[in-house]
Amino acid sequence: MRTRAAVALKAGQPLEVMEVNLEGPKAGEVLVEIKATGLCHTDEFTRSGDDPEGAFPAILGHEGAGVVLEVGEGVTSLKPGDHVIPLYTPECRECDYCLNPKTNLCQKIRTTQGAGVMPDGTSRFSMLDGTPILHYMGCSTFANHTVLPEIALAKVRDDAPFDKICYIGCGVTTGIGAVINTAKVEYGSRAIVFGLGGIGLNVIQGLRMAGAAQIVGVDINPSKVEMGKRFGMTDFVNPKEVKGDLVGHLVELTGGGADYTFDATGNVNVMRTALESAHKGWGESIIIGVAPAGAEITTRPFQLVTGRSWRGTAFGGARGRTDVPKIVDWYMQGKIEIDPMITHTMPLEDINKGFDLMHKGESIRGVVIY
Amino acid sequence: MRTRAAVALKAGQPLEVMEVNLEGPKAGEVLVEIKATGLCHTDEFTRSGDDPEGAFPAILGHEGAGVVLEVGEGVTSLKPGDHVIPLYTPECRECDYCLNPKTNLCQKIRTTQGAGVMPDGTSRFSMLDGTPILHYMGCSTFANHTVLPEIALAKVRDDAPFDKICYIGCGVTTGIGAVINTAKVEYGSRAIVFGLGGIGLNVIQGLRMAGAAQIVGVDINPSKVEMGKRFGMTDFVNPKEVKGDLVGHLVELTGGGADYTFDATGNVNVMRTALESAHKGWGESIIIGVAPAGAEITTRPFQLVTGRSWRGTAFGGARGRTDVPKIVDWYMQGKIEIDPMITHTMPLEDINKGFDLMHKGESIRGVVIY
Ligand SMILES: NC(=O)c1ccc[n+]([C@@H]2O[C@H](COP(=O)([O-])OP(=O)(O)OC[C@H]3O[C@@H](n4cnc5c(N)ncnc54)[C@H](O)[C@@H]3O)[C@@H](O)[C@H]2O)c1
Ligand SMILES: NC(=O)c1ccc[n+]([C@@H]2O[C@H](COP(=O)([O-])OP(=O)(O)OC[C@H]3O[C@@H](n4cnc5c(N)ncnc54)[C@H](O)[C@@H]3O)[C@@H](O)[C@H]2O)c1
Ligand SMILES: [Zn+2]
Ligand SMILES: [Zn+2]
Ligand SMILES: [Zn+2]
Ligand SMILES: [Zn+2]
Repeated sequence: MRTRAAVALKAGQPLEVMEVNLEGPKAGEVLVEIKATGLCHTDEFTRSGDDPEGAFPAILGHEGAGVVLEVGEGVTSLKPGDHVIPLYTPECRECDYCLNPKTNLCQKIRTTQGAGVMPDGTSRFSMLDGTPILHYMGCSTFANHTVLPEIALAKVRDDAPFDKICYIGCGVTTGIGAVINTAKVEYGSRAIVFGLGGIGLNVIQGLRMAGAAQIVGVDINPSKVEMGKRFGMTDFVNPKEVKGDLVGHLVELTGGGADYTFDATGNVNVMRTALESAHKGWGESIIIGVAPAGAEITTRPFQLVTGRSWRGTAFGGARGRTDVPKIVDWYMQGKIEIDPMITHTMPLEDINKGFDLMHKGESIRGVVIY
Repeated sequence: MRTRAAVALKAGQPLEVMEVNLEGPKAGEVLVEIKATGLCHTDEFTRSGDDPEGAFPAILGHEGAGVVLEVGEGVTSLKPGDHVIPLYTPECRECDYCLNPKTNLCQKIRTTQGAGVMPDGTSRFSMLDGTPILHYMGCSTFANHTVLPEIALAKVRDDAPFDKICYIGCGVTTGIGAVINTAKVEYGSRAIVFGLGGIGLNVIQGLRMAGAAQIVGVDINPSKVEMGKRFGMTDFVNPKEVKGDLVGHLVELTGGGADYTFDATGNVNVMRTALESAHKGWGESIIIGVAPAGAEITTRPFQLVTGRSWRGTAFGGARGRTDVPKIVDWYMQGKIEIDPMITHTMPLEDINKGFDLMHKGESIRGVVIY
């Protein structure tokens, strides 16, 4: 079949919206009509050429929601008409990782996914002239139709709006999951969130859900305060306005350091501040942000010997097929908010404008509606 | 009273054995006759002048065992004749730290202990000319008699030999505790221990106790192999003999990385290797070693985002008054071994020879018997 997609032809160039060929689903695969997709920093990281593993031409996008149109041979958990959210972290439920309760990093199709192809080693997308186009993070939601492995789709309820729940495909789950799955924040905890963007705000609402007693937001952009408060932030710190040592200031503000700190900036210096403002004895610092290629984190080992832990999280520690439907339920039950974070929507034709808004820091989340 | 002690008069000088004055215990304090004390690297770190917080003159030593001679006003948990092990990490059972099950770092007397004095701000030791001598880590076990706060003494059974259980005052508890209290290693885990000295060997026997399936020892000194095996090491790696990447070698040897890795070298480059040879998704790396002043640990944050945790431990996460008596029981029940690690004993007069042996890497533990 043919479908419309925004194609990343070369690193550093705007996406090009065009017709492409899409082959039907092979065994174990599913054809999905994407109804909406968010624009995430990770897409931009690859589009811009900053991602050393980026390969082109490719159809980016990994934060979508849609409907199953057709299932390949042997697919049993999904049928045409099912509403689904694509998963860049799949859940096969049978690999060593899926069987270990300590991780969500299913490795079943990691190699082919990393190479931009389906598990059989080939791509379903091609140019009209036949040139293959790579898949991206196993999702490629910047195409109106896409093919995914069955294990990379979470089946969700039918009454949830695509243009909101697409955000659960990455940002919402990453932020809330970092609190619930990775940190396992206890009721009454004190926390600091560095970076109040699309991820940080979701960390904040995750902390509110978990019953955190103090939720400090830290951002160099003061225009983020209003949104932070709306989602549960109790204190705001602008590092540019702190005289003297930022760590010392945060330790004082939290009565000795926070029980949990989260980096949602991707800046390695911020990651150090986040670790060091965690409480002596038991503070945990969780890295969510993705640092530039080659950047390294640093601290004195004494910070760890005196009881702080340094950890990280990918996709919020969520097992997608199991956890994503629950987060959709939480949204539908009003336990979490998504609508105010989706600050801009656009048709696929305007997808590059969405990336411009991201660059200017004007959008929390831009969403393409097909 | 007067007692004999090995006094560190100045940084970098050998200890001097001499008579010193010792005042009796004030309220909440206890006078202890030290029967035996181990020599630990931390003593040497301070003696040598490498410790930026080292202050002189001081009576070092923090790995002792002895008998209560006299108790000060208000002391209720101890009486003359009780056998005790001094605790450089006390356990008051009432500060915020003691009341938080996630930490063992009691802060009740931290400031005065760090300053080398008793909780009332003064020292009990002095030269015969009246010059005050500082306490060290709240213990000063290089004196035949010493005074400690009640909360810094673990009461242990009467039938345990002082010249062996003194080692539980630091090395044994640090190594075994890192496994049992901090990492909480599960039966069947795979582990790597970097550094097979007095601490690393105890990590190894802790892993054996916990039922680890694979225990890899890593040391640049091949003479450590025999001892490692004796305590449960299943594989040995000498980094100097590995061609190519050490992390890659260790990951392969452990079938994808270890569930738990431990640094017992104090070398920050080794700490990085230890983190990176932990298993993707769930591997935890525990820093035990104390790095030189100013040294920093470094890695790519991706190591954490993909599921590794970087942690540390002090005194093996043990709450001394509660846990140390249990470890003494384990020793008496034959669950752990100590005797073969105590490779040298000496009278107080020969304490500097003990430090020479440590420097040459010839002793696991030297013990002074009074
Ligand atoms: N681990 C994962 O699974 C995962 C998933 C998605 C995104 N991410 C990463 O999370 C990070 C955040 O993504 P986002 O979409 O929220 O980005 P964003 O640009 O919307 O938000 C980043 C925020 O950080 C603030 N900031 C920048 N430098 C700062 C500093 N020095 N101190 C304090 N605040 C600072 C910015 O003002 C902005 O508000 C990115 O690195 C992204 O790649 C990780
Ligand atoms: N965290 C705590 O509570 C605590 C308590 C006591 C001691 N320590 C620290 O633990 C560390 C170990 O103490 P120890 O008494 O066992 O010391 P040790 O000197 O007896 O043992 C260190 C071992 O590490 C080996 N080693 C050195 N460099 C190495 C390298 N690059 N690669 C592999 N092996 C290497 C040495 O050959 C030696 O066998 C020290 O840093 C000490 O200060 C920490
Ligand atoms: Zn994303
Ligand atoms: Zn799996
Ligand atoms: Zn010690
Ligand atoms: Zn305490």
